[in-house]
Amino acid sequence: MEVHNRNQSMDAEHFLMTTKLLIAKPAVEEIKNHLLERCLSLKQRGIIPSMSVVLIGNSPASLSYIKNKRKMCEEVGARFQLHQLGEDVTAPEFLKLISQLNDDERIHGIIIQLPVSDHLKNLNLPNLVKPSKDIDGFHGENNQKLYAGSTNLQQLMPCTPKGIIQLLQHYDFNLQGKHAVVVGRSLIVGKPLSLLLSNFGATVTLAHSQTKDLKSLTRSADLVVAAIGKANFFNFTFFDPGRRTVVIDVGMNSLNGKLTGDVEILSVTNVVSAISPVPGGVGPMTVVSLIENLIIAAETIRHSY
Amino acid sequence: MEVHNRNQSMDAEHFLMTTKLLIAKPAVEEIKNHLLERCLSLKQRGIIPSMSVVLIGNSPASLSYIKNKRKMCEEVGARFQLHQLGEDVTAPEFLKLISQLNDDERIHGIIIQLPVSDHLKNLNLPNLVKPSKDIDGFHGENNQKLYAGSTNLQQLMPCTPKGIIQLLQHYDFNLQGKHAVVVGRSLIVGKPLSLLLSNFGATVTLAHSQTKDLKSLTRSADLVVAAIGKANFFNFTFFDPGRRTVVIDVGMNSLNGKLTGDVEILSVTNVVSAISPVPGGVGPMTVVSLIENLIIAAETIRHSY
Repeated sequence: MEVHNRNQSMDAEHFLMTTKLLIAKPAVEEIKNHLLERCLSLKQRGIIPSMSVVLIGNSPASLSYIKNKRKMCEEVGARFQLHQLGEDVTAPEFLKLISQLNDDERIHGIIIQLPVSDHLKNLNLPNLVKPSKDIDGFHGENNQKLYAGSTNLQQLMPCTPKGIIQLLQHYDFNLQGKHAVVVGRSLIVGKPLSLLLSNFGATVTLAHSQTKDLKSLTRSADLVVAAIGKANFFNFTFFDPGRRTVVIDVGMNSLNGKLTGDVEILSVTNVVSAISPVPGGVGPMTVVSLIENLIIAAETIRHSY
Repeated sequence: MEVHNRNQSMDAEHFLMTTKLLIAKPAVEEIKNHLLERCLSLKQRGIIPSMSVVLIGNSPASLSYIKNKRKMCEEVGARFQLHQLGEDVTAPEFLKLISQLNDDERIHGIIIQLPVSDHLKNLNLPNLVKPSKDIDGFHGENNQKLYAGSTNLQQLMPCTPKGIIQLLQHYDFNLQGKHAVVVGRSLIVGKPLSLLLSNFGATVTLAHSQTKDLKSLTRSADLVVAAIGKANFFNFTFFDPGRRTVVIDVGMNSLNGKLTGDVEILSVTNVVSAISPVPGGVGPMTVVSLIENLIIAAETIRHSY
């Protein structure tokens, strides 16, 4: 039995050596330390970076995301404020609050926590928060910079794509000339990420639910980003061991009450070169990128004095 | 000799049968007839669709493009106006003209003919013309609609991508689920086209100068869009006859004084399923799409009364 246990432990080591885990923690710590310094430097100039989150209703998922944002704000010394509105809030009341926050010089970043009630969904939500306070990076003006080819991460852009680039950079993955297959074309992840990867020199294929022969695409990719929201959808058959593919798992699915990615991690072990785990990968990178956006927004206000 | 000549003629027929030429003319005629009707209907309401082109200097290439725009305007019954400025025009003078045209209710579409003098290049050119008169489709607000997933061709968007979609539609090419490889990522063609193709259900790969192993991508594609600006760059080695690939040639290169595409058309004959010729393919589709944008802009003004 002793020997059997040792073998198991050796197998575990072998697993870690062959398929590298792209764990967010060291990258998050590094970025957070920079943000702490930048936040301190702002405070010395009398500016306390301040985030306002507007929440409609009280969905447990939204409250859990908000908790992470508040926690990370506290950790870097930024101010956090929650505006909770009832699900029956009228459009004019909702718009009035956003407008007040847009005008409030003490607020640097505004988030409209999604989803909102159905009767507010036709309000052109991405463009309600003014571009300079749009720390979610959803505003057309901020997307336009990605579209135009920017590789400057010190500007407001969607947090998950930004976090993924920073995770890849932390692990020294050079995107230039690589073939990246992004599966899923949401406005929050797939589309902005495909622009950003292209700006960094990758050849990008944007795949989606209508894609035929997805496997032949992912099997020929250097980088696969799984962002379709289906637990364990990608198993070893999607990857060619000879390509040494790097996989980023954006999935945040709940499976039997457990946070589960889009990639079946045990199945692809020893098949892909590296993979970001769920939890502990893209999620924390997204939150730290959001706080970075807040600091950028606060610094930009300072520059405009 | 008689027989030899007949054989040559039969070869030519064989050529036309196996690789279909996606000639713009019938598609252009069809769209132009619609535009004639729409223009007439506007005039009956007292609105004459009017285009203003702002040209800096007098480059022969620009003057030739402008000639085509003027001709097509005349053909559908729209008004055309050229504002020619010297190459030494100051930025304030230039901006004043654009501003006057933006404010002039009799003008429905404004084009800043590219290229402009170097000292004007940092002026945020795509966003100078207001979105409702931006018939080139370069303004951020208009790009944002493509980015958000629109498949509505009756809105202002870049003319070459729009013309390519309309050419494919004319020849009944269904994009859904097809793998499209777009080579070249300019803001005028490659980037907006890749968004548009994706919106129509294609799986899109955006390739460019840093792409490694371009041939393996184009050889696995259902649709290849060649937009790199290198005469005869793509020959038969880029295509797999078994895929029956459709090729759109966006190239407008001058080779020995002759307008030449990016694809060596004789080389790919019998290898690809269909190809748009140069000249007579994407060029005329682009011009007619520009005039369509003008009519859309004029109709939108009407609706807003």
